[in-house]
Amino acid sequence: MPQSKTALVISAHAADFVWRCGGAIALHAEKGYDVTVVCLSFGERGESAKLWKDPGMTLEKVKSARRAESEKAAQALGVHDLIEFDLGDYPLHLTQDDKFRLVEVIRKVQPRFMLSHSQWDPYNTDHMYATQIALECRMIAQAWGHEPGQKVLGAPQLYLFEPHQTEQMGWKPDTFLDITPVWDKKRAAIECMEGQEHLWEYYTRVAQNRANHFMRNSGGQAGGRKATHAEGFQSIFPRTVDEL
Amino acid sequence: MPQSKTALVISAHAADFVWRCGGAIALHAEKGYDVTVVCLSFGERGESAKLWKDPGMTLEKVKSARRAESEKAAQALGVHDLIEFDLGDYPLHLTQDDKFRLVEVIRKVQPRFMLSHSQWDPYNTDHMYATQIALECRMIAQAWGHEPGQKVLGAPQLYLFEPHQTEQMGWKPDTFLDITPVWDKKRAAIECMEGQEHLWEYYTRVAQNRANHFMRNSGGQAGGRKATHAEGFQSIFPRTVDEL
Amino acid sequence: MPQSKTALVISAHAADFVWRCGGAIALHAEKGYDVTVVCLSFGERGESAKLWKDPGMTLEKVKSARRAESEKAAQALGVHDLIEFDLGDYPLHLTQDDKFRLVEVIRKVQPRFMLSHSQWDPYNTDHMYATQIALECRMIAQAWGHEPGQKVLGAPQLYLFEPHQTEQMGWKPDTFLDITPVWDKKRAAIECMEGQEHLWEYYTRVAQNRANHFMRNSGGQAGGRKATHAEGFQSIFPRTVDEL
Amino acid sequence: MPQSKTALVISAHAADFVWRCGGAIALHAEKGYDVTVVCLSFGERGESAKLWKDPGMTLEKVKSARRAESEKAAQALGVHDLIEFDLGDYPLHLTQDDKFRLVEVIRKVQPRFMLSHSQWDPYNTDHMYATQIALECRMIAQAWGHEPGQKVLGAPQLYLFEPHQTEQMGWKPDTFLDITPVWDKKRAAIECMEGQEHLWEYYTRVAQNRANHFMRNSGGQAGGRKATHAEGFQSIFPRTVDEL
Amino acid sequence: MPQSKTALVISAHAADFVWRCGGAIALHAEKGYDVTVVCLSFGERGESAKLWKDPGMTLEKVKSARRAESEKAAQALGVHDLIEFDLGDYPLHLTQDDKFRLVEVIRKVQPRFMLSHSQWDPYNTDHMYATQIALECRMIAQAWGHEPGQKVLGAPQLYLFEPHQTEQMGWKPDTFLDITPVWDKKRAAIECMEGQEHLWEYYTRVAQNRANHFMRNSGGQAGGRKATHAEGFQSIFPRTVDEL
Amino acid sequence: MPQSKTALVISAHAADFVWRCGGAIALHAEKGYDVTVVCLSFGERGESAKLWKDPGMTLEKVKSARRAESEKAAQALGVHDLIEFDLGDYPLHLTQDDKFRLVEVIRKVQPRFMLSHSQWDPYNTDHMYATQIALECRMIAQAWGHEPGQKVLGAPQLYLFEPHQTEQMGWKPDTFLDITPVWDKKRAAIECMEGQEHLWEYYTRVAQNRANHFMRNSGGQAGGRKATHAEGFQSIFPRTVDEL
Repeated sequence: MPQSKTALVISAHAADFVWRCGGAIALHAEKGYDVTVVCLSFGERGESAKLWKDPGMTLEKVKSARRAESEKAAQALGVHDLIEFDLGDYPLHLTQDDKFRLVEVIRKVQPRFMLSHSQWDPYNTDHMYATQIALECRMIAQAWGHEPGQKVLGAPQLYLFEPHQTEQMGWKPDTFLDITPVWDKKRAAIECMEGQEHLWEYYTRVAQNRANHFMRNSGGQAGGRKATHAEGFQSIFPRTVDEL
Repeated sequence: MPQSKTALVISAHAADFVWRCGGAIALHAEKGYDVTVVCLSFGERGESAKLWKDPGMTLEKVKSARRAESEKAAQALGVHDLIEFDLGDYPLHLTQDDKFRLVEVIRKVQPRFMLSHSQWDPYNTDHMYATQIALECRMIAQAWGHEPGQKVLGAPQLYLFEPHQTEQMGWKPDTFLDITPVWDKKRAAIECMEGQEHLWEYYTRVAQNRANHFMRNSGGQAGGRKATHAEGFQSIFPRTVDEL
Repeated sequence: MPQSKTALVISAHAADFVWRCGGAIALHAEKGYDVTVVCLSFGERGESAKLWKDPGMTLEKVKSARRAESEKAAQALGVHDLIEFDLGDYPLHLTQDDKFRLVEVIRKVQPRFMLSHSQWDPYNTDHMYATQIALECRMIAQAWGHEPGQKVLGAPQLYLFEPHQTEQMGWKPDTFLDITPVWDKKRAAIECMEGQEHLWEYYTRVAQNRANHFMRNSGGQAGGRKATHAEGFQSIFPRTVDEL
Repeated sequence: MPQSKTALVISAHAADFVWRCGGAIALHAEKGYDVTVVCLSFGERGESAKLWKDPGMTLEKVKSARRAESEKAAQALGVHDLIEFDLGDYPLHLTQDDKFRLVEVIRKVQPRFMLSHSQWDPYNTDHMYATQIALECRMIAQAWGHEPGQKVLGAPQLYLFEPHQTEQMGWKPDTFLDITPVWDKKRAAIECMEGQEHLWEYYTRVAQNRANHFMRNSGGQAGGRKATHAEGFQSIFPRTVDEL
Repeated sequence: MPQSKTALVISAHAADFVWRCGGAIALHAEKGYDVTVVCLSFGERGESAKLWKDPGMTLEKVKSARRAESEKAAQALGVHDLIEFDLGDYPLHLTQDDKFRLVEVIRKVQPRFMLSHSQWDPYNTDHMYATQIALECRMIAQAWGHEPGQKVLGAPQLYLFEPHQTEQMGWKPDTFLDITPVWDKKRAAIECMEGQEHLWEYYTRVAQNRANHFMRNSGGQAGGRKATHAEGFQSIFPRTVDEL
Repeated sequence: MPQSKTALVISAHAADFVWRCGGAIALHAEKGYDVTVVCLSFGERGESAKLWKDPGMTLEKVKSARRAESEKAAQALGVHDLIEFDLGDYPLHLTQDDKFRLVEVIRKVQPRFMLSHSQWDPYNTDHMYATQIALECRMIAQAWGHEPGQKVLGAPQLYLFEPHQTEQMGWKPDTFLDITPVWDKKRAAIECMEGQEHLWEYYTRVAQNRANHFMRNSGGQAGGRKATHAEGFQSIFPRTVDEL
């Protein structure tokens, strides 16, 4: 394990890190983690419907607006480094060079844990592609023969953050994180996403209901810990522990 | 969460707790946990082939031998309380009264976590039945209307310990526990199982290979923590955490 | 298909029909369906924690309170017939006679569709048991040799309504029902459940977020139909249609 | 492995062994196997609709007719021993004594392989119950402490024969058996089932299409072996081989 | 939903649309739907064995023969528009331009529902690749930033039609369509596939057995609707309804 | 089926064929099979950590060392033909030409069965990619229109050999092969892998424990055949048999 506390989010589109793990980011930032966020694209083609309804809109203008929004949100959450790969969306595609660029970030960050999308998403193939890339680049970052001399990656957990319509994605959370202390920050970041205002209340309700799950699983009516907002995550890899 | 440190193992037959979670028991005992083990049966009919090959054998003699072995093993592991339900095996069956007796144990122990079998086992239907019972009795123990006035159960994790032929049981470990510090105790407990000597080396190898998995998942060739023996567990319920 | 419009809900505990399919009940009642609800138990032991915290409480008082609540809720929803089987809960168990009593109800109702719990629920084994019973009794109701002369059952769909913590139950909705027109009735029924006030807002948020899913799947940003509240259901059997 | 060639079919209702594995029975009988068939019930209540449409029908008459049909079919297939347990159907239920009676049959037969139903069947819970019983009784038959002195069972394969509507049952065949040489016998046995004439052509078509699968998997257009009729089976346990 | 009635089939090879959804095409055509069929390839390399056995055969001749057959079949079914993408098969591969060409078709058609292959097919990787492409292009067609100004796609269902050897593909039909009224047209289309005469009777039997499933699921022996031929489909997305 | 006895292993990296199916290779070689092994890469970047820790190391030196090791191991096992594709690893990628080269090998070998990796491997995406390629190239090799005139492939089984951390890969063995007679050869081949000495004992233990599974499934305590070492395999396709 690296000495410094670090985490890495790999987000297919610019806003995903806000809805899906904004609480985890803010919470760990407060705990002294340097959280790096990679946005593989701005979601400029596929996730900016509101902007495109303006007849004079151009791709550059959309990207610029999305960039501004995500930078503002990142600031609200305390993101250490927001990296925009600007690779295009719908569909997202990475060349080998793009993958190696991501590997470079992973190695530089040396994350204690990583966060990305669900493994299956029939509504949005960019999402599941991003997860496949996260696994592939994690593997490359572990290879001693890739850019020999660089510090290779250990074996960080890959957490899958909450997709939209969880049951359709076969996503099953095994970890609930209490984000009550940083909810105000997450809500502030959510409100930076002006183009998707229809989702503000939706994801507020998600956080509230996940808090109910947090309480159920930490004791229920016989002492579950009070929480007002939470986030859920699915782990890809097993944990290694000294106590159950 | 209860103040005292407690854990509860629900084992279909007398030897299961040794092979499958003897390390977890010994390790947590060393950490100050009171670990209670419930053996629903002695495995006297189905898991005592060697004894039955003796022509003068009787059911009582087998049960007595199995009881002695499991008591000795429990002592070696530091079990706080070994409770023999003596309900018969092949097949195991619990009446409502038997279930309520198990509920009483659960409530008395107030375990921080519970351990039982895999959910599916086509070779041994007693095993999967025990897990079903564990879930049912956990639920009853949480009911405020069951023996009102007693302290109800919170929401302890149910870990499924390692079955024989894991892949056939659909068992997938999500947690590896380093049992290196207590391996000698587990081996000593294993050697108490005189009737099943053919399994001593088998489960020693399992522990060694699980240590390899522990190291892989704690860092691999880039810093995985050294471990010589480990055990794997599958969680039924999600965890609730303050840090990923 | 029978001429009259009928539906049947099989609910393990008295409140389940409200949280999980109250909208479906109210909507179909408005459409002229006679909706029968069978509560196999009152949830008196396991789902009445608030009542049991009163030191002078007795089983009969709890059952009476739960009966009153569920009758009031049923009235708010327009339930045609609320049948309390009063079989006890935590654990729920049906004898053969109890099953035949349920078969009698099924045959009398001749439902166009049935509703019950998810197939898997590690938190609450009563729930999954109720679904198993629903399938078994549906089968018996189809048997020409069971009470010959009675009208046998056809092949109604069994919809599984929404459990708590859907992802942990492996529940995947394949049908979203717009309950916007009857939301007020469902909310009124929810408010009849005085002992579980902590769930009122929870299930209101569920209905709001399911409306988002309804809109996504009926057209999304390119014309999804406006809905403010919805419910989700998983079908056990395939549909038979004349048009896709 | 026992010296003599034997096989055992465990059929929930009287006709199942004909539709689902009649070819396997006839083929192995021709190869010198003694094939024993246990019918746990006659299917008198649930699978005899045609008979019950006769207004003067009684349970005994139905059982008698079903017995006659299944005996005739067994003879056509070359069944060595047809054992009618007559335990009742819809629902089927076995007491511990019934299970021990089945164990006795298993031990007496010492089958090289066993055949039963699919593991899941939402249309017919008797079917999946029969498979659960087959696994449980296989386990008991292996117990040295059950009726000590009797020859215990080895580890025969349990093949799951083809259910109706395979995809709804989650049944996936991993073994196709060429029954071309005995098709006439299977068809003759099928025609003994006078009460279910609507299924004669259905299962003839199944056998023809399974022959197509046999050919595909034995070489396809580059040399698949010609077969006109086949049956499919799903194995519960792994095979042990000396050559792949 | 668009005003006009339209549907779109995405077929990996030229004959797939005939065997797998010819009935759905003919039925909806009779109901006034404009059904567009896209054949991504002719199946010229991998699904034309009979033609290739002729020693003088060339790729162009095979493609020409396959084109003629599929045009004739399309006419028999009442296909509105048959579009041959001619991208090559075994393996099928689409460049980004090919995908955008498909997106253009999707947007032009604005289908109420789409049809493609099963999600898994170890025998034929072209099939599962086609489904992946169908999902990816459906997503692109929904993007407001893709060819801004064009009418974006709503959220049409993607039905997966019946593969060969359904159980090996993990395909589970949730919808049975009665194609009795148009069976003659489907059979006529099937007979256009001169190179695959060995499949004519096979898929006729499939349609007959699916009719049995249609009847079972629409009421069984207690009033299942008579049907002589049917087709099965698996839905990817949930339905949105106003009545269960 | 071809007359000659042949088999083909498709291995992502140079050492995989030794750990995962070295016993199967040696055993079938002794039985007169010509076993061809294709290594798609040397594992030079990702599976040669020990070599890379030498500061003067270069890619060519690593490849050369890995080539030497795998040739020596192949000789120890009796491999008929070891073919190094040298396509690079971490990540492995095949162009269409690379695939056609593999198809050429498949057709030349005309294997009775093929061996490759598990279908899912989140630790090592090269492994699951190799299996996908094996399926795709098997399909192309069956196409009469691919290189017309060449002998097309039949329908050989694809066995998936044992991955590291089987449960994480969703790998379930359905076939256990007794490799006792050739264990010495497999151990000798293992010891050729000097760079991965930490795995020698690990895979020896795997073989010993798989022998326990072999014995359990061939009869258990009632006559399971003695074996000291075994290997497990998962089949992709169903078997076609004349006897169960």
